[in-house]
Amino acid sequence: MDASYITPFVASIQNVFSTMLQLPVEIGEPTIKSNPHPEFDISGIIGMSGDVVGSVVLSFPTETAVSIVQLFTGMEIDAESDDFADAIGELVNMVSGGAKAAFPDNKRVSISCPSVVIGKGHRIAGQSDTPCVMIPCQTDCGEVVIEVAIKQVTAAAQAA
Amino acid sequence: MDASYITPFVASIQNVFSTMLQLPVEIGEPTIKSNPHPEFDISGIIGMSGDVVGSVVLSFPTETAVSIVQLFTGMEIDAESDDFADAIGELVNMVSGGAKAAFPDNKRVSISCPSVVIGKGHRIAGQSDTPCVMIPCQTDCGEVVIEVAIKQVTAAAQAA
Repeated sequence: MDASYITPFVASIQNVFSTMLQLPVEIGEPTIKSNPHPEFDISGIIGMSGDVVGSVVLSFPTETAVSIVQLFTGMEIDAESDDFADAIGELVNMVSGGAKAAFPDNKRVSISCPSVVIGKGHRIAGQSDTPCVMIPCQTDCGEVVIEVAIKQVTAAAQAA
Repeated sequence: MDASYITPFVASIQNVFSTMLQLPVEIGEPTIKSNPHPEFDISGIIGMSGDVVGSVVLSFPTETAVSIVQLFTGMEIDAESDDFADAIGELVNMVSGGAKAAFPDNKRVSISCPSVVIGKGHRIAGQSDTPCVMIPCQTDCGEVVIEVAIKQVTAAAQAA
């Protein structure tokens, strides 16, 4: 995957977390995700399609997600509630929306509705034809990981 | 949600499962999903965007998913392997692709890359502004559930 599709996510999470949560984010070294996949408790997943097709996942341990949702909403919200899932979904939506606006060459990209996975120690696999880059993000609330698995669509594939 | 967006998924899962797996599917009564959400072990998630925005989830107990992947690939594949996630992702891709082709009024809809969640007893929440319809599907391999959470996009929202 082209690095020009990774830097927009780095800038976007830093922007969203600093403006919406007043939470600085320290970005670690991005790595290619491989099996066995790391385990998380809460993940927000959003799909991208258009000139670029793929998925973006924001994953958290429960404690980190609860702290971040509290910063975001100003309330302590139970991780089982619909409001909690809405907040996690809105965060992955904002991070993905901000990133796609900074993709190179004015790519036309649409994003789907987010889905939020709640389950201790779940793993998320993409498809093996689309490499996935994991970007570790350290915050005062704990570690958040963004996973970006996207590929450019060729003109031939779009016409199909 | 308009029922004309549900019937394409019913037809598509029956078509995909009968042609690819030779597995008849008996469709149960669709219901609106509510919290607490049901628990599953394996879920394939795909996003839709364009004139219709949303997400489609195909969820299984582990044993059912392993049997279905065996029918699909002709091999017994470990649920932890990349090939297993690829097979589940391809199934949700085919079911969603078949359904979107049958949406009313020739809607322009793109689908994203699938993500596959592996984790015993996980739950999946959408966003509370998008109602989610669960369609229970009984097969000889066990129960599969399709969840469809989609909404039509207004012209004003698309221009934004």
